[in-house]
Amino acid sequence: MAFSKKEKYNVAVVGATGAVGRRMITTLAERDFPVDRLVLLASARSAGQVLTFKGKSIAVELLTESSFAGQDFALFSAGASVSLKYAPFSVDAGCIVIDNSSAFRMEKDIPLVVPEVNPDAIPDQPEIIANPNCSTIQMVVALHPIHAKYRIKRVVVSTYQSVSGSGQKAIAELTTQSMAVLDGKDTSSEVYPHQIAFNCLPHIDVFLDNGYTKEEMKMVNETRKILGDDSIQVSPTTVRVPVFYSHSESVNVETEAPISAEAVKKLLRHSPGIRVVDDPERSEYPLAIDAEGKDEVFVGRLRNDLSRKKAINFWIVSDNLRKGAALNAVQIAELIVGR
Amino acid sequence: MAFSKKEKYNVAVVGATGAVGRRMITTLAERDFPVDRLVLLASARSAGQVLTFKGKSIAVELLTESSFAGQDFALFSAGASVSLKYAPFSVDAGCIVIDNSSAFRMEKDIPLVVPEVNPDAIPDQPEIIANPNCSTIQMVVALHPIHAKYRIKRVVVSTYQSVSGSGQKAIAELTTQSMAVLDGKDTSSEVYPHQIAFNCLPHIDVFLDNGYTKEEMKMVNETRKILGDDSIQVSPTTVRVPVFYSHSESVNVETEAPISAEAVKKLLRHSPGIRVVDDPERSEYPLAIDAEGKDEVFVGRLRNDLSRKKAINFWIVSDNLRKGAALNAVQIAELIVGR
Repeated sequence: MAFSKKEKYNVAVVGATGAVGRRMITTLAERDFPVDRLVLLASARSAGQVLTFKGKSIAVELLTESSFAGQDFALFSAGASVSLKYAPFSVDAGCIVIDNSSAFRMEKDIPLVVPEVNPDAIPDQPEIIANPNCSTIQMVVALHPIHAKYRIKRVVVSTYQSVSGSGQKAIAELTTQSMAVLDGKDTSSEVYPHQIAFNCLPHIDVFLDNGYTKEEMKMVNETRKILGDDSIQVSPTTVRVPVFYSHSESVNVETEAPISAEAVKKLLRHSPGIRVVDDPERSEYPLAIDAEGKDEVFVGRLRNDLSRKKAINFWIVSDNLRKGAALNAVQIAELIVGR
Repeated sequence: MAFSKKEKYNVAVVGATGAVGRRMITTLAERDFPVDRLVLLASARSAGQVLTFKGKSIAVELLTESSFAGQDFALFSAGASVSLKYAPFSVDAGCIVIDNSSAFRMEKDIPLVVPEVNPDAIPDQPEIIANPNCSTIQMVVALHPIHAKYRIKRVVVSTYQSVSGSGQKAIAELTTQSMAVLDGKDTSSEVYPHQIAFNCLPHIDVFLDNGYTKEEMKMVNETRKILGDDSIQVSPTTVRVPVFYSHSESVNVETEAPISAEAVKKLLRHSPGIRVVDDPERSEYPLAIDAEGKDEVFVGRLRNDLSRKKAINFWIVSDNLRKGAALNAVQIAELIVGR
């Protein structure tokens, strides 16, 4: 069944009760996506919960193989195994999948899309479109205009990632552990292998044989795929920090062409999806707590690398649940219905 | 008056009631430094407080120009202006100054010492010896053996620095703000320009004209001075994170000679002051909360840089108040009395 333009679309959210799923629902409402019927889907554990969309209560239904009949879009955010199992049923039902999990991102025939960067990767008749990893999305929004003008050779990036990237349980764990530490009590960890409260964990997702984590390799591989250039080298260190929302990233970029922080600042001021916040004298730079709930990728602390010509340093912050997940997914749907 | 060996030494701690000053007192006790008389000095605001050294109560005295008569060592940690004003009086009284402030670090004739790295920089008749910046000390302890074997060309470092580096008031501010956030209340900031609780601030010390902070330039300049090699390039981003104790650092090193993570792991296992904690399969890597109260510089997550030959990535953690300040200062005194 081919996609056809309509006035309104039936949209399913898979994993509706999760941290990203909830943001998908609010983002659809805030951006006034032309929703006809909204179907909220989840596992048996969460089915029956009632969520709100534009003031209307909607009961969460159990996700089944036949959940996608009559739907136009399914926004998946329930983990890779759920996507692998249920996305094919959605495709069979003619419902376009926009998948926030890692399941299909590196599949050759599946586009991995950040609307500001590679909107043209979406085919005329899309079936599954992958939403990139949160830490990658905010980085490539900033890298894309730089790569287009200066050609990026290498990126060294260290991340400061919030716990909301691990879901609602992690938000609760940071809360509970922080209270315990402040009360002088012992903490216990379930989501993370170690205490995250007042600590930094250089460990996101599982470790691979090369010593890097899966999260780190996502930043290497997804960046190349989205920017469409396998020659870009990325050297990542991904770190979980005791912050609730928004990921921060310290980025060093080396380019082919001569580059300057001043020129990049001007370039990024006119690049889509970016807000430059960079006035050190007034202590203005991107901050996690300021980015929370915002759509933009915030860039600041732009400065020439003192250690190497043709290199700059900067600091990128964005709400990982919004631009890093829910917003990017809804933007992909907007691109498709807007064509 | 020249330094002469004795069985025991009179030691003054300037800034005794501060976060570092208190660690200096406990470090002198723990390491059983041969103290004859311990004099605790502070400003009028803190004079009169009573602190404990080896079970003995000692009243904090007011710091004056004549505080150093009869003293052998003065460990300063009361800020650069206090050091600039009072260190000369100490020197005049024949009392060796070990200064934890930034006042003298880059002075040509004043040695900047990390005992594991450049003990020979201390002259036969020392007057003032500068203790390096906390984030620099832990980094150079790890860089030194690597530089000796592979010659370091360039370091890209992003830090995750704890609030104790800003003193006791900052520890209180993180505590108070964290409680307020968890209670859903507004926060106010006095020590930092923005909320530090559940946030990351890419801003440590003041901003300079080149867009870098003073803290960042300390990592550039002090690293060169301590390693005795002005050709080493350092590209730093220093960030304050909501952690109470210990600084973490994400470090990328490029070398002249071919290098591998495996070889560096072996090298560092036999290097002084370092403990390698690097077993990803068991989720073992250096952590701020584990380093707290420990003497070592912990190194882990050693891996080959995928983006460039002759480069590696690793993660360094150390207690910024101990090896980053108090311990390093006491080790310098130990070097002098041990000769």
